[in-house]
Parts: sequence; structure tokens; C-alpha cells
Amino acid sequence: MPGTVKAILFDTFGTVVDWRSSLIAELTAWGAARNITADWTGLVDAWRGNYAPSMDRVRKGEQPWTKLDDLHRATLDQLIVQFGLPDLGEADRDHLNRGWHRLTPWPDSIPGLTRLKSRYTIAPLSNGNVALLLNMAKHAGIPWDMICAAELFRHYKPDPETYLGAAALLGLEPGEVMMAAAHNGDLAAARACGLKTAFFARPTEYGPHQSRDFAPDGPWDVVAANIEDLATKMRC
Amino acid sequence: MPGTVKAILFDTFGTVVDWRSSLIAELTAWGAARNITADWTGLVDAWRGNYAPSMDRVRKGEQPWTKLDDLHRATLDQLIVQFGLPDLGEADRDHLNRGWHRLTPWPDSIPGLTRLKSRYTIAPLSNGNVALLLNMAKHAGIPWDMICAAELFRHYKPDPETYLGAAALLGLEPGEVMMAAAHNGDLAAARACGLKTAFFARPTEYGPHQSRDFAPDGPWDVVAANIEDLATKMRC
Repeated sequence: MPGTVKAILFDTFGTVVDWRSSLIAELTAWGAARNITADWTGLVDAWRGNYAPSMDRVRKGEQPWTKLDDLHRATLDQLIVQFGLPDLGEADRDHLNRGWHRLTPWPDSIPGLTRLKSRYTIAPLSNGNVALLLNMAKHAGIPWDMICAAELFRHYKPDPETYLGAAALLGLEPGEVMMAAAHNGDLAAARACGLKTAFFARPTEYGPHQSRDFAPDGPWDVVAANIEDLATKMRC
Repeated sequence: MPGTVKAILFDTFGTVVDWRSSLIAELTAWGAARNITADWTGLVDAWRGNYAPSMDRVRKGEQPWTKLDDLHRATLDQLIVQFGLPDLGEADRDHLNRGWHRLTPWPDSIPGLTRLKSRYTIAPLSNGNVALLLNMAKHAGIPWDMICAAELFRHYKPDPETYLGAAALLGLEPGEVMMAAAHNGDLAAARACGLKTAFFARPTEYGPHQSRDFAPDGPWDVVAANIEDLATKMRC
């Protein structure tokens, strides 16, 4: 397996960073500092709950191309009302929305990616926009070689344009690129485009609401425990 | 100056890497190993000589979008005949063309970029395509945060779509982005788009044929001796 793969693309939300714990912690601390009480955990779960539906509207052409920062912001504006928050001003809304730029990696992510980078090109292939992924990398110290974002292809995963577009940008055949994700659905779409695949579970991604992706459910090329273990299996 | 700038984009050929010396050395060694004699220096100068004209045909719409690897290759195929080389096969032509992926940085480039990366987002903004710039970075250890390539905008510099497109991808206003280059013309185009500018000379870039860019000729925000000095002036 290592012999044919030259680049490894990583799903990011849930796979590399722990969005749920990060956002709950950040919003809870922000609320305490502002003396605003709310169901922050419920708000974060609802925010993420609208992730796939909001992208699906773009994927189906019901809405023109909209980057993820703007989809997140539209959802946040609704949730501020729904969760009974005060009518926050623009600066506060922008700050909260950029919480997605400040997510914390899982403990194995940076050590594993640093090892993989010595042998492979490593990049996110995420539905996050470039600025979101870049700011996240600068904030958390994620050592990407390049940022591959859905924004570059104006298509959201799992559209094939994302996987094939990333391989083309890297100057590689699909079979020379590996998609790594904690989500079986992402890997199924990548595999259908000819990419290699690597799975590892993130069983606490959705907290008590996690209902799937506890185990691999497809013929993935590599199954690992986490990104450090992936580095070992990829001989780094 | 440092206060308003959040990202620094670097021209790459000539500004970060010494394309001429790198390619002459590589071709000379390759020729010696193959027992092929040719005017390698003349070939390299002619190869680069067709750089601007070949991109101009794309910029003027006389040719559809073509990435730099393919423009380089079309020129190489002509030069193989013109310089009397044997009729090389595909593998050899591809290897020689990828010499542009293996260029050597100037001595100050990596130390300076490493310092700048601690405080700013750093990326190339180059007419090279993504794979070329990425392979170059992996080969030479250039610590880019992101690869901004003309290919992402389907426009070559100095078209404004490149400078403004890069700022938009980074999620920044043009005035929060600095273009750094050893070429006054690149900076003039960036400044016209509202970017900040930094100049340093690379007086040996074109060897004995260098005719310009020995000194700044515009109202650039920063003038430095090289990238290490730029890091000092940008308080890194």
C-alpha cells in the first residue's frame, strides 16, 4: 500500500479535529464571560445538525455556491433566535462563527500528520473553505502541505468533483491519492472515484448522539486506530 | 506595516528559488550522465525566454487555459529540436520538464520564510501550477501554509484575478495581504489591486543577461535585502 500512494487527503471535521468538544468549551466560556446563559451543547449540536442539509441545498443547485463560513453564519443567525440569545451585534456573531476556525485536534492528529508529512504530501480535503482550514491550521499547528477545500472546486463532498479535482491539482492519478476519514460515506465516495482509502473511528465525535461510523463498513485499503497508527501502517 | 498585514504572498521563480542555476546544474549533470553534449545554459535561457510569451497567449485568450507544466513542456519539445538534442522519449522529456519542480531556494529563503511563518500566513502566489509548487516545496523544504497558484484562478499574473483571488481565498481584504517579489512589475500589479508590497533584488537571477529589477522602482511598502531581512523588517 505505501508504494503506490503519494498523497494523503484528510477529512477534517471529526477526523482531524474534535469540533463538538471545542465549540461547546468555547461557547460555554464565552457565555460565562458575557453572563449569557444558554443551552450551548444543544446549540452546537443544532449548528452541526444543519451542516449536511445546508450543503445539500448547494449540491442540488437550490442555492448558488456558498462557502461554508457563510452557511455556518446563516445557521448561527437562526440559532441565536431559536436558543433565546440576546440580539448579538456583527462583531460577536463573526467571532462566534469563527469558532470553527479554532477547533482543537484530537491528541494523535498532529503527531501522526507530522510523521506522515515526511513521506507523503498531506492536505485536508474538507468542505470547510480555504480561510477556515488555513486559520485552523495556523491556530492548532496542523502541518498541511496544501489546503484542498471544496471551495476550490465549487462542489461539496461527496460530489466526485472534489476527490478528482484534488488529485488533478496534486498532479496525481486517483490511485496515487489516499482519502483518510472517520466517516464511511466519505470513503465510499472517494473509492468510487478510484482513490485509496483509510478509515479510523472517532467514536466520541458526536458525543452521546453518535449513531454510526463506530467501525469500518467497506473494503477500505487501511483500517487504523487513529492517525498515529495510520502513520505506522504507512511506514512513517 | 506589520500591524495590518496578515498574509505574505511570494512570487516564486527568481524570488524564492534560483531557477537558472538550478536548471543549468541539473541539465549539465544529466547530459554528462547520458553522454549528451549541448549548450545547456543556452537551452535554459531559451526555455525561460518563452515563459512570458507562452503565458501571454493564454492571458490574451489565443489559447485556452493551460497550466505552466504544459507550457514548459511545449517549449521543451521545441528546444530539443532547436538545440540538436537526440529525439528523447516520453520518460526523459517528463523528467527534464519536472526539473522546474526541483529548483533550489536562495540561501536566505527557507530561514526567512520559517521566521515569517511564525507570525504570518505564507504562501506562494506564482504562475507555477499547484503540483509544481507543491513538489518544489516538498523537495526543498519550503514551509508554505498554502499553495496559491495561478491555476486556482485560471489567470496568470499580472492579471488582477490572481491577486484578488488569493486575498479572497485567504478570507482577507487586499490591504491585509502583502505581495513580496524581486520583480517590480509584479508588485505594481499587486499594488494596483490594493495589496501591500515588499521588494528585494535578486541581481543574479538571469545571470549575465539580467537587465532590470536591480533596484526598487515603485513606492513599495517595504524594501529589503532578501527574505531574512524582510523577516526582520516584519518583526519576526
